[in-house]
Amino acid sequence: MELFVERGFEQTTVTEIAARAGLTQRTFFRYFADKREVLFWGAAALQELLVSAVASAPDSTAPIEAVAAALEATGPGFQERREYARQRQAIINANPELRERELIKLATLASAIAGALRQRGVSEPAASLTAEAGIAVFKVAFERWVNESGPADLSRIIRDSLGELKAVTAGAGR
Amino acid sequence: MELFVERGFEQTTVTEIAARAGLTQRTFFRYFADKREVLFWGAAALQELLVSAVASAPDSTAPIEAVAAALEATGPGFQERREYARQRQAIINANPELRERELIKLATLASAIAGALRQRGVSEPAASLTAEAGIAVFKVAFERWVNESGPADLSRIIRDSLGELKAVTAGAGR
Repeated sequence: MELFVERGFEQTTVTEIAARAGLTQRTFFRYFADKREVLFWGAAALQELLVSAVASAPDSTAPIEAVAAALEATGPGFQERREYARQRQAIINANPELRERELIKLATLASAIAGALRQRGVSEPAASLTAEAGIAVFKVAFERWVNESGPADLSRIIRDSLGELKAVTAGAGR
Repeated sequence: MELFVERGFEQTTVTEIAARAGLTQRTFFRYFADKREVLFWGAAALQELLVSAVASAPDSTAPIEAVAAALEATGPGFQERREYARQRQAIINANPELRERELIKLATLASAIAGALRQRGVSEPAASLTAEAGIAVFKVAFERWVNESGPADLSRIIRDSLGELKAVTAGAGR
């Protein structure tokens, strides 16, 4: 990650990354399929966190609130690593291939959340719509959080953004 | 497109596509950067339609309704080519690279719609949230329309899906 910041994602080789991390190339490739994966190693854990939070919401919780709670639960983990999140986002935004990979990650998260909602007995298309709306909120909130110059609380921004989504879908004006 | 259905996307060469269309390879590459683009040639027109529909909604229209009207306006064009849309979707679903390209197309449409909303004076993050929610509705509705075995009206499914989104974000249960 430091290397990506120092010399740019395209210019950094796997050999350099492995050396910086004190790994052989062979060990590197045991953990990562390619250097893109270095920036996405947290995706599986994020998905697990979201799915288990949706699954463990009380039965009486409305689907959108179960998703909101799950998204807010991701806040503390990101909050601890805001500087990392910022640098990562800058690298991703500068590289079309990484932007694609990020979109796939978000689409995969939406599918996983929809699956967790169906497990709770939510029917289609409500499950997919709730999950996609949740990911839309997450995407917009994350961007606000990363770009905010002062201190900023991701969980709170997620909650506020969901409030805004509720207002706009209810037909609020400008 | 016929060729992709007959022999699969991966197995079809540009030479074959050009020959079937009565074009030289050179002419083909004047129109398309690669064979993936054959499946996405309509994206620019779709974006133009969405952006101009959002822009031309009456001033008094709430942002979400302007986006809904724009999405519904895409219905008739797709409706005429439902068989094509079905075949295209099957090809895209079977190919990870094409799925990525489709996600990028949807993300680009969301950005364009958010831009059109800001032009109408909608502030951020409301513009981005409304646009992302609209594209989420479109994605889910389009999938339902493509998979529906009997006759199905895309504009109506879009309208219904937006209604469902409003219900779920308002906290409707299962």
